[in-house]
This record gives sequence, structure tokens and C-alpha cells, in this order.
Amino acid sequence: MPGDPPGHRQFFRFAPGRLLALDGGSALSEVTVAYETWGTLDERATNAVLVCHAWTGDSHVTGPAGRGHATPGWWEAMVGPGRPIDTNQWFVVCANVLGGCQGSTGPASPHPVDGRPYGSRFPVVTIRDMVRAQARLADALGVDVWHATVGGSMGGMQVLEWAIMYPHRVRSILPIATCMRATAQQIAWGSIGRRAIMLDPRWRGGDYYDADDGPADGLAVARMVAQVTFRSDNVFTDRFGRDLIDWTGDGDKFGLWQQFEVETYLDHHGTKLGRRFDANSYLLIGKAMDLHDVVRGRGSLAGAMGRITAPCLTIGISSDLLYPNYQQRHLDEILRSEGVSSRYVEIDSPHGHDAFLINVDQFADPIAEFLDEVSER
Amino acid sequence: MPGDPPGHRQFFRFAPGRLLALDGGSALSEVTVAYETWGTLDERATNAVLVCHAWTGDSHVTGPAGRGHATPGWWEAMVGPGRPIDTNQWFVVCANVLGGCQGSTGPASPHPVDGRPYGSRFPVVTIRDMVRAQARLADALGVDVWHATVGGSMGGMQVLEWAIMYPHRVRSILPIATCMRATAQQIAWGSIGRRAIMLDPRWRGGDYYDADDGPADGLAVARMVAQVTFRSDNVFTDRFGRDLIDWTGDGDKFGLWQQFEVETYLDHHGTKLGRRFDANSYLLIGKAMDLHDVVRGRGSLAGAMGRITAPCLTIGISSDLLYPNYQQRHLDEILRSEGVSSRYVEIDSPHGHDAFLINVDQFADPIAEFLDEVSER
Repeated sequence: MPGDPPGHRQFFRFAPGRLLALDGGSALSEVTVAYETWGTLDERATNAVLVCHAWTGDSHVTGPAGRGHATPGWWEAMVGPGRPIDTNQWFVVCANVLGGCQGSTGPASPHPVDGRPYGSRFPVVTIRDMVRAQARLADALGVDVWHATVGGSMGGMQVLEWAIMYPHRVRSILPIATCMRATAQQIAWGSIGRRAIMLDPRWRGGDYYDADDGPADGLAVARMVAQVTFRSDNVFTDRFGRDLIDWTGDGDKFGLWQQFEVETYLDHHGTKLGRRFDANSYLLIGKAMDLHDVVRGRGSLAGAMGRITAPCLTIGISSDLLYPNYQQRHLDEILRSEGVSSRYVEIDSPHGHDAFLINVDQFADPIAEFLDEVSER
Repeated sequence: MPGDPPGHRQFFRFAPGRLLALDGGSALSEVTVAYETWGTLDERATNAVLVCHAWTGDSHVTGPAGRGHATPGWWEAMVGPGRPIDTNQWFVVCANVLGGCQGSTGPASPHPVDGRPYGSRFPVVTIRDMVRAQARLADALGVDVWHATVGGSMGGMQVLEWAIMYPHRVRSILPIATCMRATAQQIAWGSIGRRAIMLDPRWRGGDYYDADDGPADGLAVARMVAQVTFRSDNVFTDRFGRDLIDWTGDGDKFGLWQQFEVETYLDHHGTKLGRRFDANSYLLIGKAMDLHDVVRGRGSLAGAMGRITAPCLTIGISSDLLYPNYQQRHLDEILRSEGVSSRYVEIDSPHGHDAFLINVDQFADPIAEFLDEVSER
């Protein structure tokens, strides 16, 4: 909330009457962007780094849990004093995405007309809309040019759109475990999550904010689907194997609802998300990822990616099921074929998509070096 | 139904009072096994081949749609006169699994005590229980020894259990795109499907048979999850790409429920299954697969697999996400290390798990040759 001490979550509010025109055709008014910053912007505003968060992330990249953020930073090992993105050197900014539920305007926000939650009235937003909102924040912060935009998964989609939409405002980019356009399989996973939420009678068509309860069960199932795609076969086998949770059935050794350990793990993740995340935001952000396509309205992949001028370090993960590493290699190849300086680094990890949060040690040095190289150009 | 012409679905009923003791500890009475046969059993009953079906399959391996089976045979290219499993040579049998909904005793069957559907009262059954029911059918058919047991996916689990439980009744085995024990990731996918069905208020704890409607929507979501794991990233991209279905929204270009083509495809498969399959059977059979573990009660993997004496041809699929080919190679290796004659053939296909239904041409010859080789031993 406003009044939080500096260094904690802050709020940028669009000037009264200032609209945010959306890709879909409508517009939002009274937009708020929640954000956090670390480090100090230098006099010429040359050291700003934008970190973009993933699906259920928020602005709290680093630091302990506290007011406005129930959990510690989601990229603790990456951002901080002396860490790869060193806050002694860089002014780091992260904003909760448009449509989110961690302080930025989203479906749970009051509709300007009647003050009641948007709910089902909230328009579909795209990754480009999210970036447009961030650009207004950059203006307000006095950041004309980001030294770098960095992010994994959906964060990487924003990173790419920044470089395509505002090539003059981005000095370098670091898209990690992401894609240039969502594939049919990625859309399929997203679609199943949407259907699970819709299946929960407590979703109520999206207008559940005045009710006693929301679609936590549907959201939990949606999260379970995502959680499996975030990890890998090997890691699940190593961690859970076929262990069963204690079961006291009706005399039978087996029961339909008897759980294996992996099920308890998925339950835990599903339930946890249900407590901290708004189902409508989950739907909306998922849709934004499915709609992510750098080509839309730009003719061709080469035409879209050819707008990028910023040097690129792209990072893939050997075991990523959701954003397979061929997508990162393709991104790197197409930039190089368009004459952009680009480098590909692969995280060799069994952890699947989540490796970009887990195996920071494997790409810490390449990131720190890349940021310095860009300074020296 | 009884009275179907021969060559169509037939029913084997356990003798009155004859129980089927289950792995879980309880027992079923008044068990019926629905089955079909093709070809003629020779005088010495040496030419019988058992085909085992997968999750939502049934006894109708081959032949047109008709009474008792709404769709044509699920392995049409594999089984029939002059086909790889040649019904001019082999007497082919396929039985609907115990717990199913296509004629064999399952949750929708009448409970012997009150004549009302079992519903939630139906006990959990295992792959071994399914095989025990098939063994009774074999007795009734006069088949002491199967020339071969053949099956993909859950069918392959039954094939393995036949060879472990009844080594003297199986002359050869062909487990395809299957596993020796379900992995945590396989269980995770199954678990999500279960949760989706439970989420549907019309599931009613499993006792929906007297209601106007059942959990078709929950079953559809469960099927959507399975459907993605049955195919592959490449095939989805080639077939659907990012094409959108026509959309007439409220003026906005995008809508939360606007569908990509891949979503319409998943919807179609989900809805179709909801029309032909019972959700309780889906739950029960899914649980049987999760519980599948040849090691259970047998000490070790080598100990369990070492009981197999039948020569084996195992077939894997290069692009299988659900039963990755390393599982088939492992199966082959462990049999060979136990001194069993075993061979591994890989289907090189982009189609994922479903390739065992699609790319029959790739393993038709190896199967036909293997069946003949076994005869010549």
C-alpha cells in the first residue's frame, strides 16, 4: 500500500485521465503499476536493469518476505549486493505485470465506473500491453534506456517485446527459457489450466469477489498441470519415486484417493498458489502467454526479430519440457542471421524449466560478464 | 449384450459364487468379462494371441463400428486377415479390462447385494487383478498357453504381468510403449486427471448414475491432459501451429475464451470421451496404472522380471513423452541380463505415445516375424 517504506513495494499511478490503449482494442484507465527497486540510479540514468517476472511471480525479486509480499524474493541468488546482477552497480527495477494481482491493476482491482472489482469485465491483455505499462513506469523513473532487460519464461517474452517495440530504449537483452511465439503444445497446457478453473463452480464466471470463496480448487488443478511442465521426469523420479503416503482405508490396501508422494507435492503447490494468487489473474496472464507471438502484426519472424538492435544473451535449459532448448537456440540463430550480436548459453540441469530459478550458479558468470561487456561497448 | 452374433462381443460370466480375490484385499462376485475373438483356435490350442487394450480402449481391436462398440477397431491395421497379427493364422482374443465400462464388470455394473450401480463402492483394482480375470477367461476358452500376449501402454503392463504371474501360460510377449513401474511423472499426470473429475460437481463422489448427468466436463479436462501427453510438441506445431478459431467478441480482438485450433482439438477429444466412457472407470483404470509396479511384493526389479521366461519383443517410440523410450530399453536390458531372449525395436516417429496406434507399418514386420520365430522354436 502507499506509505510503504522506500525499498519496498511502491506504486506508480497513471496521471488522471491517462489511458492505456490495449492490443485488443479497448483501453484501461486509472492504471496502477506496483514495483520495487534496488540500488541507485546513477546521474545519467545509464545503469538501470529491468527484471521481468514470470506467470505467478511479482515485483519482489529479492529480499525477505514482508508487507505486500508473502514470500522471499523469487530470484534471490541472482539479484543483490555482490550477486550476478549486482545492486551495488545496477539500479534494478521489477514491476508486477498488468493484469496481475500483486499491486498492479488487474481483475481484482476496482472498475473506475462503479468501484467494484473488474472480475469478468477485465479485458484480455497481451505481453505487449504489459510492456507498454512498464514503459510508462520507466518514463516516471527517469529511465530513458535500460542497460538491460532480463527475465525467464514469461519474463523473457517481455524482454523480447521490449527490444522489438522500443529498440532505442534497450541497450541489451537477456531472454531466458522463453520463446518467440507460444507453440500449440504450450497453448494446450495453458488451455487445460483455464478449463480446470472454469470447471470450479466457485469461479462463477469470474465474478467471485463478493462471494465467500473463490475457485481455489480449480486454480490448484491448473497449477498442478503447470507444475509438472515446470519440472522433469528425472527429478520427479529422484525426489518422489513411487513412495506412498500413509493410508488408512477401509481394510483394502489401496484406495482411489490414496496418494503417492508426488501427488502430495502437487497438492501442496496447488493449494499454496490458491492462497496467494487470484484465479482471474492466472487466467489472464496465461492467455497473454498463449497470445505471445512476436510476429503478430509484423509480417514475418525475421521482420519482427530484425527490429531488435540490442545485443542478446539467451539462456536455455537442457531438460526444459515447456520451453525446449531448441526454442532458445532458434532465437539466438535468428538474431545472428539478422546481424545482431547474440550468444547462447545452456544450463545443463535435470530440473526442467524451473532450472532458471534453481541453477543460478550455472549462468551467474555469463550474465555478470555480459552486463559488463555491454557497458564497455 | 448376450445374443450378439458370434464374432461380435461376447460375455464370459464367472460361475455363481465364484469370487475374484483382489490385490487390495477385497473380492468381487458375479464378475463378467466382455471379449471378442477373431480367427479359429486350432485343435491343440497352440495359436491363441491375447491383445490387451489401453486406458480407454475396449475389446474391439478390429472391425467396423457396430452393436456394443461405437467406433471401429482401435488396432485395425495390426489385426485381421493378412495383417501383422494375421487372423487366418492366429486366434486373437481381446477382453475389456476389469473395472472398465465396455461390458466387463466395473463401477457402473449392478452391485450384487442391491442391484444398484457400484459407483463409489467399486474397489480399486490393479493390473494384476485385470490379468487374473483374463486368466479365468483363458480357462473358459480352453487356452492353456497364449502363443503371445501383446499390448501397448496399459496393454503392455498387462502383458508383463501375464509373463510374471503365469510364466507357464505365455510362450512370448510383446510389451509396447509401456513401463515396468509407473514413474512419479506418470502418476502426476494421472493424479491431475483424477482431480479434474473430482472438481466436477456432477461427479457426486462417484454416485452419479441415478442423476440426470455425469461429470462429462471433468472427464473432458482429464482427457485433455492425457491427450497432450499422448502426442508431441512437433506434431502439435505441424498440425495446429497458432491458428485461431473465428471469434466474434465484444469489439475486442482477443477474448479469454477465444480458442486456438489446438484447444478445439482438445475439446473435441475431451467431449468425445465424455460421451463414450464412464468417468468412474476412467478414475479406476488410471489408478491401476499408477499402482502398476512389477516389483510390488516381489523384492526387486531383477527378482520380478527374472520370473519371466517368455522371449520378448519390446517396442519403444522415439518421441514418446509419457512412456519415454528409455523405459523400453531398460525393460529389454533387464530381461537380457536375466538371461531371457529379448529384442528392442524403436519406432522412429514424431507422433509421440500414440505412434503405437498410428505407425503400425514401422513394426508390422518385426511383430509378424517374431510371432513366426516363436512358433519355430
